[in-house]
Amino acid sequence: MKYSLIPTAQTVVQHCQANDISNIVISPGSRNAPLTIAFAENPFFSCFSIVDERCAAFFALGMAQQLKKPVVVLCTSGSALLNYYPAIAEAYFSNIPLIVISADRPIYKVGIGDGQTINQKNVYENHIGYSANLKQDVTHSTDKITQYKPDWIKNRDVLTVQNEVQKFNDNELNNVLNTAITGNYPVHINVPFEEPLYKTIAKLTVHPNIQPIYKKEIQLPSLNFEKNIWNTSKRKMVLVGVNTPNSIAENIILNLANDPSVIVLTETTSNLYHPNFFNSIDSIIAPIELNDANENLFESLKPDVLITFGGLIVSKKVKAFLRTYSPKHHWHIDGTNPNDTFFCLKKHIKTSVNSFFGIMYNNSVEVKSNYFSFWNRKRNYYVLKRAEYVNEIPFSDFAVFNSVLQAIPNNYLLQLANSSTIRYTQLFDLNSSLTVNCNRGTSGIDGSTSTAIGASIVSKTPTLFITGDLSFFYDSNALWNDYVRNDFRIIVINNKGGGIFRILPGKENNEVFEKFFETRHNLNAQQLCSMFGFHYAMADCGEKLDKEMTLFFKDSGQPKLLEIVTPSLINDKILIDYFRFIS
Amino acid sequence: MKYSLIPTAQTVVQHCQANDISNIVISPGSRNAPLTIAFAENPFFSCFSIVDERCAAFFALGMAQQLKKPVVVLCTSGSALLNYYPAIAEAYFSNIPLIVISADRPIYKVGIGDGQTINQKNVYENHIGYSANLKQDVTHSTDKITQYKPDWIKNRDVLTVQNEVQKFNDNELNNVLNTAITGNYPVHINVPFEEPLYKTIAKLTVHPNIQPIYKKEIQLPSLNFEKNIWNTSKRKMVLVGVNTPNSIAENIILNLANDPSVIVLTETTSNLYHPNFFNSIDSIIAPIELNDANENLFESLKPDVLITFGGLIVSKKVKAFLRTYSPKHHWHIDGTNPNDTFFCLKKHIKTSVNSFFGIMYNNSVEVKSNYFSFWNRKRNYYVLKRAEYVNEIPFSDFAVFNSVLQAIPNNYLLQLANSSTIRYTQLFDLNSSLTVNCNRGTSGIDGSTSTAIGASIVSKTPTLFITGDLSFFYDSNALWNDYVRNDFRIIVINNKGGGIFRILPGKENNEVFEKFFETRHNLNAQQLCSMFGFHYAMADCGEKLDKEMTLFFKDSGQPKLLEIVTPSLINDKILIDYFRFIS
Repeated sequence: MKYSLIPTAQTVVQHCQANDISNIVISPGSRNAPLTIAFAENPFFSCFSIVDERCAAFFALGMAQQLKKPVVVLCTSGSALLNYYPAIAEAYFSNIPLIVISADRPIYKVGIGDGQTINQKNVYENHIGYSANLKQDVTHSTDKITQYKPDWIKNRDVLTVQNEVQKFNDNELNNVLNTAITGNYPVHINVPFEEPLYKTIAKLTVHPNIQPIYKKEIQLPSLNFEKNIWNTSKRKMVLVGVNTPNSIAENIILNLANDPSVIVLTETTSNLYHPNFFNSIDSIIAPIELNDANENLFESLKPDVLITFGGLIVSKKVKAFLRTYSPKHHWHIDGTNPNDTFFCLKKHIKTSVNSFFGIMYNNSVEVKSNYFSFWNRKRNYYVLKRAEYVNEIPFSDFAVFNSVLQAIPNNYLLQLANSSTIRYTQLFDLNSSLTVNCNRGTSGIDGSTSTAIGASIVSKTPTLFITGDLSFFYDSNALWNDYVRNDFRIIVINNKGGGIFRILPGKENNEVFEKFFETRHNLNAQQLCSMFGFHYAMADCGEKLDKEMTLFFKDSGQPKLLEIVTPSLINDKILIDYFRFIS
Repeated sequence: MKYSLIPTAQTVVQHCQANDISNIVISPGSRNAPLTIAFAENPFFSCFSIVDERCAAFFALGMAQQLKKPVVVLCTSGSALLNYYPAIAEAYFSNIPLIVISADRPIYKVGIGDGQTINQKNVYENHIGYSANLKQDVTHSTDKITQYKPDWIKNRDVLTVQNEVQKFNDNELNNVLNTAITGNYPVHINVPFEEPLYKTIAKLTVHPNIQPIYKKEIQLPSLNFEKNIWNTSKRKMVLVGVNTPNSIAENIILNLANDPSVIVLTETTSNLYHPNFFNSIDSIIAPIELNDANENLFESLKPDVLITFGGLIVSKKVKAFLRTYSPKHHWHIDGTNPNDTFFCLKKHIKTSVNSFFGIMYNNSVEVKSNYFSFWNRKRNYYVLKRAEYVNEIPFSDFAVFNSVLQAIPNNYLLQLANSSTIRYTQLFDLNSSLTVNCNRGTSGIDGSTSTAIGASIVSKTPTLFITGDLSFFYDSNALWNDYVRNDFRIIVINNKGGGIFRILPGKENNEVFEKFFETRHNLNAQQLCSMFGFHYAMADCGEKLDKEMTLFFKDSGQPKLLEIVTPSLINDKILIDYFRFIS
């Protein structure tokens, strides 16, 4: 095996290996050559080559999201690492352990006008768990300009100084990987390298001091106060955001589902299913909103206790409702960063969701309540009305989502883009065997395709990615890699612009709107498919869609993309009318 | 005319208008609607719609680079603004006044898990001239949650508080625009907006306090010391980096060109031409490097005084040379940030290049020297040898650059991508009527196409953009806009990967190299041309290239792209052999 001659390169790679961090997404460059060589020549690591750093970071994010463990992205010095930033912010707010490693120039070449050199130290300050700024080896350099060594190493024994460097770097690497692994944070490791960059040796020369990672034991809090309130509250609302599939125990699900004083609101990203759970939150709230006279309906939906778990909430309607009709108690269970999304958070209960509800339902008294039954009738009504509605509407975004979501085969990994895609999907029942993900940390349109592809390559099941046209074209470089599986499927719902803007209240339909909000275009995905080796099909009416959907999930020798072109001018009306129809 | 109802939106727009900042590049979003409306509905402003924020910012950078005045990029909240960061860093190191305006959520919705919300304040900290974090209006809000107002405005008269907000925001806007205009820095204005976002009124309600911008007068320094050295030094080297065309007076050029004790090294980006200037720096230095015995040639090239002006230096060879053979004096003339690129900078002389050399040549004594004549003979030799060499080499990157550069019509704006493109171009003579630009601030491959298109739309002459394949595919979204002129031309030199890596010393040719450094691919630009309405042509041999070049610059009803496919495996050898051949 070959190792980089550079001590810091050996050190970084050994820390990763010791912590079982084995997936490395590499973007090309020269300054990062020592690490590229050290990772790529070591069979422990699976290395992926992706040129566009923005895509590379989202691709790694998708892998880490599925693997539930850190993935490394590695790039050269300069603006390269700034292209990682959108994915880092997404990782930060979604608690995904993305490990960014950037190569840097030697410190004396920063700030003096050298090429591909920026101010890399702490550059992600606002959205990072830990920034480790490693020191440069002093034993490795053929540079003649020794007078530019920093003061602290001048006139000192080189080996003594190198030992200090090693100790500092080991300590920083122990800290930074501990933060990523135990805190699920994105972290940044900045590594200055001196030339020559490409030299290798046959045997490791550095034996770093690697500390074992340990998670602090969290003591189970006393929950007497909560249990008391639980046992006496007639209206308990459980609201579930982004959540891992199969994380909630079956008996907890049954307890919650059969409790007459509990309603469980599940977002599409919650991966939590039971027939008694309310999975189309907006279909419950919109009808109340539409009827101003119904203020006491909001009052009767208002919970005594709100319990949340999981990540960020998509539904704007439930946010607006809970901010106005504040529950007396809001507790957030588990998770790293409890968000005070509704401005009434009273407590962050640092225990697992299963143990929390285990305690609540242990020797619990049944609280008599019609909270569930009342709202369940409302729910049953909108389910019927929705079925009626989709039968009578023309071909449109709404109708397309209804058809497409029903056609997804069992056990697929479903990756959703932001904006319209996630919002429409939230309106429908999903096959409970699906696993669903969407980048809700920053809710950006910038990396959904790359995330989906990254997720798909480590998924045990095939992946369907649904996206809108702007989001798809934005991240078209996502398709530029050698790793797309033949069972990967993309559906682009192309309404020729940012359809979501048509739905927003208050906007005017004029030239400024079409140009700067909707940003109308006439692009389609056909040429990109031809460029990147995807099978392409198109549907612009219900019949074509039905026909294509029967073929779409069949095995094939290449990945497939189905573009569904919908009429942009009627989509917003059909969505708004839906809420009126079920009211 | 229509104005946004929101006071801060009116304020920002009036500050821009008063400072004659009229070009606004807008990416779609809802949070930025108040500013989008305020800019787009006002005929003073020219607004451009670009979806991908990474491209939008480079597009604006290209405009600002040509206009020599600030251009605004405007986006919504969340990860959108992180996509601006590569262009901001480029602007920072290239002294281009890019004004970033990001809409933000109201402060009480930051950090509580709201959608599309990140930590926007000071997010560009490492690479920004000024970050103005504006305060939110208190008179504009229909939000019912008044209890979430910050403490400092609770229980106070709303109009008094609004006056304080207005005063604070005016002051910040005066500061931030002053920094952009007088310092040529990129700056960031972060503007929180409360809903409703789309309301307009017919008359301005806000009359901001706009302070006039003034540049500090710089006193002409006493240059007696320098003049004395100038008049007694037999070897004066003038090295010119990125520089504005026509900025150096004709008599100064003549003085320098005819001074036997001066050699002027001009980089391609210097836009400075005279037959006596040395425009292929590497062709002078490489032959000395290649012959180790020639140490006294380096000694005789080593200047007594080095005078630099303009931006960052491309040539690695001149950097290595001047770092090893340090001149006694290095003065940098003019500019905001003098870089100590060669570790021997003695003085930053804060006066214009014209006035500096005006003083040096005023009543100057001619210094007897063979410095110019000696190196001019070397130069004449490599010019002859280069002509000989291009006649005998096969079709390759080297041969292609030679042909292409000779074929560019007079007066074109020539935009160059980084990496191989700029390095090859530096080896050849350029038509002196051309204006040349390249993003040398960070030397990234990430936004060259967008920059070129942005530059082209404000250029008085047609634009040719030359790029490599990785750089072109990286920034393919650059083509996704409605502003590309029919006289815009792109040449993609496609050597099927990062050809520059083959030239680097020390790398091995193995699988790891091909996959993670060169990143070989089989893409071509045809589908992108078809997608975005470019005429496409391809040449993969000298005959085809000659034929295509005769047609390429002719008028056409659409922009054109010429893809030149070169044999990747021989390119590096032909380049290395060139330096041997002229030695």
